Amino acid sequence: MRKNFKLTIEYDGTGFCGWQRQKNERTVQGVIEAAITTMTAQPVALIGSGRTDAGVHALGQVANFLCETRLTAAIFRRGLNSLLPEDVVIRHCCQVDESFHARFNAQSKIYQYRILNRDNPTAVGRQYGWFIRKKMDQAAMRDAAGHIVGVHDFKAFEGAGSPRSSSIREVLRAQWHESEPDHLVFEIEADGFLRYMVRNLVGTLVLVGLGDITPDDFRRILLSTDRKQAGATAPPQGLFLMEVKY
Amino acid sequence: MRKNFKLTIEYDGTGFCGWQRQKNERTVQGVIEAAITTMTAQPVALIGSGRTDAGVHALGQVANFLCETRLTAAIFRRGLNSLLPEDVVIRHCCQVDESFHARFNAQSKIYQYRILNRDNPTAVGRQYGWFIRKKMDQAAMRDAAGHIVGVHDFKAFEGAGSPRSSSIREVLRAQWHESEPDHLVFEIEADGFLRYMVRNLVGTLVLVGLGDITPDDFRRILLSTDRKQAGATAPPQGLFLMEVKY
Repeated sequence: MRKNFKLTIEYDGTGFCGWQRQKNERTVQGVIEAAITTMTAQPVALIGSGRTDAGVHALGQVANFLCETRLTAAIFRRGLNSLLPEDVVIRHCCQVDESFHARFNAQSKIYQYRILNRDNPTAVGRQYGWFIRKKMDQAAMRDAAGHIVGVHDFKAFEGAGSPRSSSIREVLRAQWHESEPDHLVFEIEADGFLRYMVRNLVGTLVLVGLGDITPDDFRRILLSTDRKQAGATAPPQGLFLMEVKY
Repeated sequence: MRKNFKLTIEYDGTGFCGWQRQKNERTVQGVIEAAITTMTAQPVALIGSGRTDAGVHALGQVANFLCETRLTAAIFRRGLNSLLPEDVVIRHCCQVDESFHARFNAQSKIYQYRILNRDNPTAVGRQYGWFIRKKMDQAAMRDAAGHIVGVHDFKAFEGAGSPRSSSIREVLRAQWHESEPDHLVFEIEADGFLRYMVRNLVGTLVLVGLGDITPDDFRRILLSTDRKQAGATAPPQGLFLMEVKY
């Protein structure tokens, strides 16, 4: 009997060369597909909602796979979690309609980017944030983030060599908050993301926070659609894929 | 000029064979002493408030060292942080009276033990807690923890081969709380701790939580002073040395 299973996946990106299966590299898709194959004794293709880059984490990545099996969703969740390495966890597994496709059906995604902004770095949890020593102006960063919301051509924040047909995306939400003192969190929801888009936005918002450019400069960079105007790409370990909405 | 410096130290214990210097092993004391020696060009002995075992973390370990130097506390903090590997951070450094001794002058210490108690393990942060799947009875664990407070002979919770002259300690506080849903935190403050004492207490409190023994059984185990009565030693990655009071 052909079934379609939807997985909600958490992973620590530190030890992975990103999501996408690659020969001779440890990837999230690769280790999950191997575990499914162990359970089903058949090659299975796992369809992710999208890729994440090397070092990027996920608390709520979503993927699906089709296979002929008598196994149930509950058995898959428990079985996969016992087979998977400890840096990947299946948070939920449910059977869905055969038409469900984790990438094509995604309505929006939510990412967080976490920054530790204080005089001293941290040892515990250093793999889950970007440490910036110089105190940043959070009000200016919030102002700049306001310009992101809406339908824009985000070419200025797109990584080189990205294979997209269009660089226009709709951002539904883009906000900074302080989750605890000195811990800044940038949360952004959009109908889709270009490669490196969140990390390039954050790299440029940090320039605003440091006073190197103004919120208005940020708006001009966005409108310029010129990657050379924007700031550097923020490092991967601060980025978390939080949720995919369907 | 002879100066005495007090360090407040954070470390991620995952990559260390504990605090104490050992030949051919990577230890926290070892890497900090090496960094101080790089700055001062003289061998320096770092006096910790006490040891922590392999895999145990610290947010507020305290240590001191004496040396002849013109360097200031601020220069030591910045210099050590630039020399140290990223899993050790000097949170504070200040110059103190020559009589200050991190071990002998310690009045009390605070430890936390963190447990993730839910159906699914976690990938992000798995190195900072003990995962227990079966739902535990928090009220029973709180009841049992109440028996710990006060002056007791903690021999039932002492690791084998410990070189202590007495196993009597005064516990000032021993409490469970939920830091967020499913995240249980045991916090304990005492005038001193025996080897493995917190981890053995937690291993036995977990038996209460799981319903294997009652809070009253826990009290009897404490009074028995018999290590064989108590539960297994909880794993190191849940334990954090939070603070040393002087």
